[in-house]
Amino acid sequence: MSDISAGDVAKLRAATGAGMMDCKKALQDADGDMENARLLLRERGLADAAKRKGKEAKEGLVHSYLHAPNPGLPPKIGVMIEILCETDFVAKTDEMKALAQDVAMHIAAAKPAYVSLEDVSSDVLEAERELARKKVEGKPERVVEQATEGAIKKFAKQFCLLDQPWVRDDKQTIGQLIAGYASSTGENVSVRRFVRYEVAEALE
Amino acid sequence: MSDISAGDVAKLRAATGAGMMDCKKALQDADGDMENARLLLRERGLADAAKRKGKEAKEGLVHSYLHAPNPGLPPKIGVMIEILCETDFVAKTDEMKALAQDVAMHIAAAKPAYVSLEDVSSDVLEAERELARKKVEGKPERVVEQATEGAIKKFAKQFCLLDQPWVRDDKQTIGQLIAGYASSTGENVSVRRFVRYEVAEALE
Repeated sequence: MSDISAGDVAKLRAATGAGMMDCKKALQDADGDMENARLLLRERGLADAAKRKGKEAKEGLVHSYLHAPNPGLPPKIGVMIEILCETDFVAKTDEMKALAQDVAMHIAAAKPAYVSLEDVSSDVLEAERELARKKVEGKPERVVEQATEGAIKKFAKQFCLLDQPWVRDDKQTIGQLIAGYASSTGENVSVRRFVRYEVAEALE
Repeated sequence: MSDISAGDVAKLRAATGAGMMDCKKALQDADGDMENARLLLRERGLADAAKRKGKEAKEGLVHSYLHAPNPGLPPKIGVMIEILCETDFVAKTDEMKALAQDVAMHIAAAKPAYVSLEDVSSDVLEAERELARKKVEGKPERVVEQATEGAIKKFAKQFCLLDQPWVRDDKQTIGQLIAGYASSTGENVSVRRFVRYEVAEALE
């Protein structure tokens, strides 16, 4: 049985909203692999447990950060974010506001496209895996597996907010930053959604 | 030929970004009917003319408005909005900031789902027409036509930002409010997009 760190459990909990013991169990079953543990939680229907069970993360706050690249010009980049926790007692603290501001400023700079891998369609993930597979065509199965897993981790680090290294301290991911706040408040704290606008940017 | 008011031309221009003469022509061809004039502009490929032609509305600003329903609680409703104009000279004026604030506060209260009818899928509009048709089944064609046109106008007034009566002065629509600012700045001014968050609201 793998040795699971409390930090990984907290990170998985922040990412999925699942209970602490469920997260630990999923990490053990996945030999410590974060992505596989998330998939296990999803299969087990636990990933959204927080939405259904007793302690719902249904309070929270909306926060926004506007960035004017040049003094004298109006804001050209804007981020809005929704952060959930369990009680308004925590939602109204300065700590939660500081977290919201840190994460919103990070989003302005790092331009994530998703909150977590959970929000990425399986089509997109499969396309990433397929690209990785092509690069190691003909190699042993173990190598192919490592390549596809590596590709998903790279994708997450690049495009998923919770897996991005924090722009202000790349020793921790945003997921870990949030887990730290969650642990200090004693509540389930999560980013539910965010949006980033840049004036006149091309739209899909 | 219908008598077209300058206000209607300005409103259509704000809604579509098309040129002033194109808007006037479309309104004349549509006998002054705003919705049909928009559809004509779309057919003629002029509705997005501003994006392609000389005077592009490519400067602008992002603005946000956060609303705390109860003092002592954090913001529970947030709106972010992108407003485009032609130059940063106008984008940085207090007038544009005031417009952005007025429109964002309106969105917080009136909960529009689209900027304009242009953003509504034809499936949704056809479903509205179909409902209206059923209510007047067997009536003369003229009655049916009036009913479906009326249904679309009602839909626009309810769900489209530019057609909503301004919550602070329902004698004008948001489209007219913006057209007033556009006319006073002498530039093409438009709302490109907006987003409204409410903490823990159900998502689609």
